[in-house]
Amino acid sequence: MQKNLKPCYYGEYLHLDKLLGAQQPVSPDYGVEAHDELLFIIVHQAYELWFKQILHELRDVDLVMSQTKINERELGAVIARLERIHQIQTVMIQQLSVLETMTPLDFLDFRDYLIPASGFQSIQFKEIEIRLGLRANQRINFDQQSFYSRLNEHDRNHLINLETLPNLHDHVEAWLARIPFISTTEFDFWQAYRKAIDEMLEQERHIVANHPNLSQQERDFQLREVGNIGETFNCLLDSERYEELRQSGRFRFSQRALLASVFINLYRDEPILHQPFRLLTALVQLDENFTMWRYRHVMMVQRMIGAKIGTGGSSGSDYLKQTTENNRFFRDLSLLSTFLLPRSALPALPQSLKAALDFNANR
Amino acid sequence: MQKNLKPCYYGEYLHLDKLLGAQQPVSPDYGVEAHDELLFIIVHQAYELWFKQILHELRDVDLVMSQTKINERELGAVIARLERIHQIQTVMIQQLSVLETMTPLDFLDFRDYLIPASGFQSIQFKEIEIRLGLRANQRINFDQQSFYSRLNEHDRNHLINLETLPNLHDHVEAWLARIPFISTTEFDFWQAYRKAIDEMLEQERHIVANHPNLSQQERDFQLREVGNIGETFNCLLDSERYEELRQSGRFRFSQRALLASVFINLYRDEPILHQPFRLLTALVQLDENFTMWRYRHVMMVQRMIGAKIGTGGSSGSDYLKQTTENNRFFRDLSLLSTFLLPRSALPALPQSLKAALDFNANR
Amino acid sequence: MQKNLKPCYYGEYLHLDKLLGAQQPVSPDYGVEAHDELLFIIVHQAYELWFKQILHELRDVDLVMSQTKINERELGAVIARLERIHQIQTVMIQQLSVLETMTPLDFLDFRDYLIPASGFQSIQFKEIEIRLGLRANQRINFDQQSFYSRLNEHDRNHLINLETLPNLHDHVEAWLARIPFISTTEFDFWQAYRKAIDEMLEQERHIVANHPNLSQQERDFQLREVGNIGETFNCLLDSERYEELRQSGRFRFSQRALLASVFINLYRDEPILHQPFRLLTALVQLDENFTMWRYRHVMMVQRMIGAKIGTGGSSGSDYLKQTTENNRFFRDLSLLSTFLLPRSALPALPQSLKAALDFNANR
Amino acid sequence: MQKNLKPCYYGEYLHLDKLLGAQQPVSPDYGVEAHDELLFIIVHQAYELWFKQILHELRDVDLVMSQTKINERELGAVIARLERIHQIQTVMIQQLSVLETMTPLDFLDFRDYLIPASGFQSIQFKEIEIRLGLRANQRINFDQQSFYSRLNEHDRNHLINLETLPNLHDHVEAWLARIPFISTTEFDFWQAYRKAIDEMLEQERHIVANHPNLSQQERDFQLREVGNIGETFNCLLDSERYEELRQSGRFRFSQRALLASVFINLYRDEPILHQPFRLLTALVQLDENFTMWRYRHVMMVQRMIGAKIGTGGSSGSDYLKQTTENNRFFRDLSLLSTFLLPRSALPALPQSLKAALDFNANR
Repeated sequence: MQKNLKPCYYGEYLHLDKLLGAQQPVSPDYGVEAHDELLFIIVHQAYELWFKQILHELRDVDLVMSQTKINERELGAVIARLERIHQIQTVMIQQLSVLETMTPLDFLDFRDYLIPASGFQSIQFKEIEIRLGLRANQRINFDQQSFYSRLNEHDRNHLINLETLPNLHDHVEAWLARIPFISTTEFDFWQAYRKAIDEMLEQERHIVANHPNLSQQERDFQLREVGNIGETFNCLLDSERYEELRQSGRFRFSQRALLASVFINLYRDEPILHQPFRLLTALVQLDENFTMWRYRHVMMVQRMIGAKIGTGGSSGSDYLKQTTENNRFFRDLSLLSTFLLPRSALPALPQSLKAALDFNANR
Repeated sequence: MQKNLKPCYYGEYLHLDKLLGAQQPVSPDYGVEAHDELLFIIVHQAYELWFKQILHELRDVDLVMSQTKINERELGAVIARLERIHQIQTVMIQQLSVLETMTPLDFLDFRDYLIPASGFQSIQFKEIEIRLGLRANQRINFDQQSFYSRLNEHDRNHLINLETLPNLHDHVEAWLARIPFISTTEFDFWQAYRKAIDEMLEQERHIVANHPNLSQQERDFQLREVGNIGETFNCLLDSERYEELRQSGRFRFSQRALLASVFINLYRDEPILHQPFRLLTALVQLDENFTMWRYRHVMMVQRMIGAKIGTGGSSGSDYLKQTTENNRFFRDLSLLSTFLLPRSALPALPQSLKAALDFNANR
Repeated sequence: MQKNLKPCYYGEYLHLDKLLGAQQPVSPDYGVEAHDELLFIIVHQAYELWFKQILHELRDVDLVMSQTKINERELGAVIARLERIHQIQTVMIQQLSVLETMTPLDFLDFRDYLIPASGFQSIQFKEIEIRLGLRANQRINFDQQSFYSRLNEHDRNHLINLETLPNLHDHVEAWLARIPFISTTEFDFWQAYRKAIDEMLEQERHIVANHPNLSQQERDFQLREVGNIGETFNCLLDSERYEELRQSGRFRFSQRALLASVFINLYRDEPILHQPFRLLTALVQLDENFTMWRYRHVMMVQRMIGAKIGTGGSSGSDYLKQTTENNRFFRDLSLLSTFLLPRSALPALPQSLKAALDFNANR
Repeated sequence: MQKNLKPCYYGEYLHLDKLLGAQQPVSPDYGVEAHDELLFIIVHQAYELWFKQILHELRDVDLVMSQTKINERELGAVIARLERIHQIQTVMIQQLSVLETMTPLDFLDFRDYLIPASGFQSIQFKEIEIRLGLRANQRINFDQQSFYSRLNEHDRNHLINLETLPNLHDHVEAWLARIPFISTTEFDFWQAYRKAIDEMLEQERHIVANHPNLSQQERDFQLREVGNIGETFNCLLDSERYEELRQSGRFRFSQRALLASVFINLYRDEPILHQPFRLLTALVQLDENFTMWRYRHVMMVQRMIGAKIGTGGSSGSDYLKQTTENNRFFRDLSLLSTFLLPRSALPALPQSLKAALDFNANR
């Protein structure tokens, strides 16, 4: 700290002149100022500030995760960044409750002046989606056509270029695929896992077959269920079947990456897997939070602008509802419990592997 | 207060012996106690306590709303009860975050012992749904078959009987249909409203037709949109069209009730309509809160139990997802903004009607 | 809507160039950019946006409440504005959780560069405090000296001038003092209230004196309590005593205004008092929310910057803690329940007064 | 899983007959049932359920932390238990918003019947406080006398006995004091830390002395501040001074334990310190959450029962306010940032120590 410090003033440090000069309602141009237009502007500006912060965190996360060797120190920072985004998402959801204090009737006072701008046509938000891994061909059509077509060239190129670069989904997938331990000379997780599943299903079949309180109908139903579960596991373990389902969009991760994430979930109590487990959990939470935000947003838009009835047209809220389900980033991780086994059925790790998963012993 | 007061002790007053003796994990019957089973029990018990409180409030709301003449004093109490339920719903949603601290792997430790009980097979919750207005034929099939068929006769009859009784939706509908003011000798809201809509649409058509910055393609699109809006309003105002859509499930309220709720929304600034407007708003909020809770619940269940892959079977979370959209109670009210007009286009009320909507003038 | 509409673009409408160009971390001027400085800036900017919105609402509330005759239509809008501020406050509290993701160690990376700026030296926030009614002489010393002395002349004069103008507390007080009904030819609330209190206390004394399960010690304690309650009510009803306590800062409202607020609370079920009751409740909530925000802020600052130990100096968090308790705006309203009576002890209103409190009868 | 599974029914599993039969309002014994008494009961019962869960988690945490050698696997579970309690605390705070929907006037309908029971006279909550480390002599007098004196012998003995046993504070302190690495043959943290502080303070003195924009008055003030900071660090590092302050209650941890927690905070990026850092953070959060809950509770009680005015008596809310500040469990940890150094000033660890803090290298 060689340099002398310049004194710092609150208002200048925050550039409040710029910040607080950026709210320019348009309703006065057309007549009386609509009281609620300022709210509309400020809520959206608050979102843009948070988007900027999220992007700041994601860029840093990317920097770490795009490395081919990620050390433990950095993984901790990545998790902290993601957990910060969770907190921002909670604020984002809460902000909808502020916007909801504007009633539809109050919105009508200036809604027409905003044509054709739309609430969430945010370049920054699209950048977040792309960085997290939303692919161009995953977007629903309305979004493709209606959104991209209205951008100016600069913004459109910016986004299209981003879509060609590796994203967080890619980096996480590559990192998972590299995870060691899964197959060592002494232990083959794939084999052990398959064996454990077979035993578990066999046991379940036995229980259902002998359960005293089940009617024949229920017994048949339960047996079919067990069969379905077996089929489900098979989808993960049979490479061809897996690739087929991956082509169809049912899976997105490579088989190796998905199996690694199952491994991490099953053996997360081992010290060296603590952080990887927390990372996967943080990604699922991030994904769910955006989904929750979208869903609440849909409900608000619906309440605010209503629906079209008796026509073929689809409304903005229909479109938004589609994105809620469609624009998930880490769906594979959300459904991971599909492939878990009870701890009691877990293949035991050989001692040498356990040691490798623990801290340095010379303490 | 003639009677002498008996001294009251905290633990006895709350019957803590019963309350805190009601947690009996079953995992010890099968081996080691699963640490998280207590959490599972307590979260569900907390839900049942809140359900009891919600029913307590709803019964009181019913008592008021089932009257053929409801006075202003009582309407205030109804709103307060509903706003209390909102707060309970916020807690209900928050409780999911507690349950989510149980990981899928921890749930596997005792999940099998709960067969065939399921998380939210709650008689009280079904009673809430029925009291609010969910009709038997509105329930999705899985719910009908799978849920009702497993109840004992007493519980099943209790619910089936409830379904035959008038519910809150019925009472609100009847109350709306009775609202005076809509058609007096001096003012016919239906006519004035239709006229205002026609003028508004005409004006929009004019704007779109002359807007300098619209391409022909966009102009055509916008004009079709205006046409669609006209068609939408027509669905409300044309009795036959309305009845048709009502039969198909698009509307649920009677035409008269729906129009009354539009009237209340448009003229909610008039003193006598303050409370009715708050009541309608509270019902929409109640509905949205349950929807949010269901949606978050779906996401949690999905994360907790995963999905079936590669089979035709549908999973519990698929079923839950359907109820999220399906089991709305006051959908007509959620979409009311469809039929609103900007204040600037609102038909003015004659002075005599304005006086009738205000407080007693002799103060 | 004569004018043609200009097309509106999202980014331009929100002036995103200005908004997103207003984040200028200073850490790069001194060496490496501190990753978390952007967060620090953005959180504070988000607060400033919300402060602007709160001021927008408060100015509108002032406009209505400063009138000598306030009509019912406008009272509804005032309540809506205050309830919107509640929602903003919830976001403000939530934002602290975002800031808390910055650990003390991370803050140390750039904390020195901010000297002598301090987190919440916000002109806008001081304006909120002044508009709500915080008086110059109510501010704690540190605030007076340390804050005002550092402002530039323009800002200082702006705030000092604001302090001379009537504030929301003044307007609410005047409105309460004007409330009719309290003393009519047929009904004198003061007398009826005093009589009811005397009867209630007499009854309590009787109960305690005859309660079978109280020990003599407890009986004496309870009787002293009843005496204290009587003394408390006397403070409200005896004009001289009241004025004394008001001079000492124990009360702030005029006696007449405070009694009116008791009246509104007791008879809030009467239709004409619904809105006034909601207004008082909304003011208390506003006050409590700011208090909660200050309190959480104190805890965060404490965690972030620690304490001075072993010296006489007081720290920033000590100062903040003082403001939490000190800077309440509507303390009289928060403590109103001190003066309530059970409904069963409430003096009945004469029929003519009840009619005057109801809606126009000619419907 | 040899045993056959018994079928499980939702209502029986949750013992809903007991649970939902445990609400017995007393107002009907004295006249009309007070509508809100059920709410009062259910809110308090929900708290008791959560207290039971918190105790379940704390007992498990205790089991781990009371060991003299704690392995990494178990530390992960401890953190998960504490983070679960955080979520429960969020629900506990939210529940206050439900209780607040009961207005003071509604509470008056049955408040007298509860004498002398009081809202939070909960044995379970006292047990939580004791298990976390609240000592008998730390309790404020009112609590000692008024609370303990009213318990029956069984409950009083239960709590008094608990107070004699080691609590979580003790276990954490012992664990901290045992942490290795702080002083090895190659590295003495105490020395390195003291040296770094001295250098930092010297540098700050230099900056202040040469800062061009400081007036002489401000310069003097800042220099005194630097002196105060030095004095503060001295309190930690000088054993005698520390012990003195510990006797006076300013510190609670042993010097060795507090220094270890400083070490953990400063070097938390080292893999082996990730979990210990998370544990300390979780304890601070737990503490703050209870403090927030108490504070909101105070505000609610104040709003609900008002204050005594003009008498010497102190009210229930005054008592509660005292506990808010008084009953902190891990105050030392909350103020830890007092003793942190910027990363740039951090003493570097020797390579051998860094290796020891990392994972097993043979992967």
